[in-house]
Amino acid sequence: MATNPQPNQEQESQFPIRRLELADKSKGFIDLLSQLSSCPQISDAQFDLRFNEIASLGDDHVICVIEDPVSNRIIATGSVFIEKKFLRGCSKVGHIEDIVVDKEVRGKKLGQKMIRYLSDHAKGVGCYKVILDCEPDRRGFYEKCGFVEKNVQMAIYF
Amino acid sequence: MATNPQPNQEQESQFPIRRLELADKSKGFIDLLSQLSSCPQISDAQFDLRFNEIASLGDDHVICVIEDPVSNRIIATGSVFIEKKFLRGCSKVGHIEDIVVDKEVRGKKLGQKMIRYLSDHAKGVGCYKVILDCEPDRRGFYEKCGFVEKNVQMAIYF
Repeated sequence: MATNPQPNQEQESQFPIRRLELADKSKGFIDLLSQLSSCPQISDAQFDLRFNEIASLGDDHVICVIEDPVSNRIIATGSVFIEKKFLRGCSKVGHIEDIVVDKEVRGKKLGQKMIRYLSDHAKGVGCYKVILDCEPDRRGFYEKCGFVEKNVQMAIYF
Repeated sequence: MATNPQPNQEQESQFPIRRLELADKSKGFIDLLSQLSSCPQISDAQFDLRFNEIASLGDDHVICVIEDPVSNRIIATGSVFIEKKFLRGCSKVGHIEDIVVDKEVRGKKLGQKMIRYLSDHAKGVGCYKVILDCEPDRRGFYEKCGFVEKNVQMAIYF
């Protein structure tokens, strides 16, 4: 009897996830990333070069976005790249990076949706696990997404 | 006046680091990895395929080894792969993975030497940082290598 879409379905159709496109530079993709980290503006040529370097890896490095259908601005992004190993019978690991949801549209579960999409991609290409590093106060969010805490991240900044 | 090599130089020459080669499968490379994680034996064809997939990435995914000059067995390994980002002016991040030193030769600082080599590689190709995930009780080792603790690693196992 249900002829109207359920809320979840509505959100799925309202905010579809798609892969990054060259035109997304003019739709605020870099501005969105600047909510995560230092992100100076780059030229179109720099953007095109990096875009093509990443695109050449195909399904092994996927950057996804959500575009607001009204403003045509990029309001969420996330990426996953696939590391190929020799251990576990030549298995693979998905590394999730650079998850950002525009501060104006938080609370719509777009972050969870993005994480699920990227995790499904990693699983689909044969990874035995997907991992990410986050600030300690983001543990709760990732636990809701099905992650468990495993190790500590160490870093050297050059 | 010093004509004899210093201890450090001696060790440099005794245990040089080099990139993984196809012949290393027969020199115990997979056995060494099994000291780190589940690592069933794989066929030569599987090894060759994975080797070539990784080698096709050139300096963007480097697996290094140390071969014992007497036994011709692989006694240490480590890898770094380079993630290309849009943030920080199209910067890069080095991800260090799969550091193992054969339990029979620990205490010779081969692990530190490997980490330094991989970090230098990441810096050399333009990374702004190098990161890795480790078990909490390995913090001290990585601090000696110049790392600082940053975040927590979260994981989903499929």
